[in-house]
Amino acid sequence: MLKTKGFAAQDATSALGPFQFERREPGDLDVLIEIAYCGVCHSDIHQVRNEWGNSVYPMVPGHEIVGTVTGVGEKVTRFKVGDLAGVGCLVDACRTCDSCQQGLEQFCQTGAAMTYNGTEMDRKTPTYGGYSNQIVVAEAFTLKISPKLSLAAVAPLLCAGITTYSPLRHWKTKSGDRVGVVGLGGLGHMAVKLAASMGAEVTLFSGSKGKEADARRLGAHNFVLSSVPNAFQNLGGSFDLIIDTVSAPHDLNQYLGLLRVEGAMVLLGVPPTPAPVSAFPLIMGRRTLSGSLIGGLPETQEMLDYCAEKGIVSDIELIPVQQINDAYERMLKGDVRYRFVIDMKSLNG
Amino acid sequence: MLKTKGFAAQDATSALGPFQFERREPGDLDVLIEIAYCGVCHSDIHQVRNEWGNSVYPMVPGHEIVGTVTGVGEKVTRFKVGDLAGVGCLVDACRTCDSCQQGLEQFCQTGAAMTYNGTEMDRKTPTYGGYSNQIVVAEAFTLKISPKLSLAAVAPLLCAGITTYSPLRHWKTKSGDRVGVVGLGGLGHMAVKLAASMGAEVTLFSGSKGKEADARRLGAHNFVLSSVPNAFQNLGGSFDLIIDTVSAPHDLNQYLGLLRVEGAMVLLGVPPTPAPVSAFPLIMGRRTLSGSLIGGLPETQEMLDYCAEKGIVSDIELIPVQQINDAYERMLKGDVRYRFVIDMKSLNG
Repeated sequence: MLKTKGFAAQDATSALGPFQFERREPGDLDVLIEIAYCGVCHSDIHQVRNEWGNSVYPMVPGHEIVGTVTGVGEKVTRFKVGDLAGVGCLVDACRTCDSCQQGLEQFCQTGAAMTYNGTEMDRKTPTYGGYSNQIVVAEAFTLKISPKLSLAAVAPLLCAGITTYSPLRHWKTKSGDRVGVVGLGGLGHMAVKLAASMGAEVTLFSGSKGKEADARRLGAHNFVLSSVPNAFQNLGGSFDLIIDTVSAPHDLNQYLGLLRVEGAMVLLGVPPTPAPVSAFPLIMGRRTLSGSLIGGLPETQEMLDYCAEKGIVSDIELIPVQQINDAYERMLKGDVRYRFVIDMKSLNG
Repeated sequence: MLKTKGFAAQDATSALGPFQFERREPGDLDVLIEIAYCGVCHSDIHQVRNEWGNSVYPMVPGHEIVGTVTGVGEKVTRFKVGDLAGVGCLVDACRTCDSCQQGLEQFCQTGAAMTYNGTEMDRKTPTYGGYSNQIVVAEAFTLKISPKLSLAAVAPLLCAGITTYSPLRHWKTKSGDRVGVVGLGGLGHMAVKLAASMGAEVTLFSGSKGKEADARRLGAHNFVLSSVPNAFQNLGGSFDLIIDTVSAPHDLNQYLGLLRVEGAMVLLGVPPTPAPVSAFPLIMGRRTLSGSLIGGLPETQEMLDYCAEKGIVSDIELIPVQQINDAYERMLKGDVRYRFVIDMKSLNG
């Protein structure tokens, strides 16, 4: 077994602190990665604090993992020692169901192995995430990372990047499309960058006037202050796709009414309570309300390659792991532009 | 002008009664139809009673119209005197917008001309529907009716038929698909017949045990009594498409959870209040909640041809027009299996 250093939550209410644990020795098809950086996702907070009710402790969070390969199993063909590598939200899946066969491992019908707060496919061995100095992952769930980009700023692509890239691709965003993005946080800022890079005319909807300058800097062509009365007037029927990144309760119907005929609104966040949805805007135009969850392995690799080609990374604030508890508090206040990334060298500090 | 006999509502609260009015002389591109039968749609009641708040009186309802051509304009090519013909919910549209160009006239971006309680495209001339002895309609909005089928039972295809056929086609229902139908009324009974005719395994969801025998007779393979606790257990993840015909408030989330990955639930009715929708079942499987509104002219003709080929018609109860007020009361109690159709000869009675 490999002695591993990490930061863990021991229960739902305590601060995260240092934690020593063991990872398996790499098998024939495994890759061992020395973790350089790990992004901090809002879902880390939800799970650390057991807000989804399924938390298992000790928990080592983190599913936006990048680093360098330091060992490979005998049968590994796509990676060698010294390569850059990444791990996202999944470390395994059944690999045989319809979803897995289609490269939609996130919808594995037997349940994928989540990178942390889950188990390996044996349903017993707990998984520990990227707030740690190394990880052992099946080659099939390890992603190639281009050296062209800032490695720390690539980390959030593994969750925030693929979560926003996948709906843009699934709903076939192309040059000239009108794409709305609701909310400018970790997900929203990636949605703006990616949609703009695809040639879409991007409109950012935010309740905070202070986000306008950033939205435009990130690539948004229009900004709508959603808290103003009549903000939505004259926008009706114009959007091909609206990507909603907001987890707080908010009115979905006003956005549905902005879609063109057969337009789609896609939820990426899960508000704590169901949102009232009127059938009328759906029926009048065969519009759809849908949701999207990260992306499968092939699409995640495609996204990473696309970002390398286009020079797209996340806007980040690099922190030592010792600041993680403060970072959580700042995230809860929306005080991060736009993703914290942990420098894992700090584990030795 | 053509003197025309009909039945009309004079206001939101009075009973329908005889009404004389005029229709235009057929123009070069118009068809004059002697109406034989007109189906009675639930939306007739909503509009007669101004439940949608947009009613104009006097109102001659009816948009499930079949009859015989008794006159054609000089430039009409597809119809001749003596042909059977039908008219659905639309009598005109702009014919130039993107939606019209795609044959989705129901989503005409300038607003289609509805068959009644609307205006012609001049936005002035009121339209009067099929509770009448004749109608003048643009050839482009007139449908060919096969003589193979019972003409009275064809009438409801013009609304209930296309409303259920369109989502089955749009979501590409094919042999072996699992299709759920929620509610067994005018729309639901057509959805069951049509889905079964396409080779789908059809499950009817109803709150009324008394509907089971009919559901199976109409082609449903399975029946789920939705009012029973745990009725939805063991059904999860199995449906390709769920067609929801219910306009009364009901829980949508329990149905969304039954969809397979990338499955779709389609609303055909508009409940009076928005329904709480949880993001979770949408996100976990990229499922969609959508709506559908009748169908465009090309698809309506396709549906009529399909039904002629497959021998599909509506289950109807034929009534004289003098019974329309009683029929409305019975419809409100769900006491019709499954569509009233008015025999227009009764106008002379």
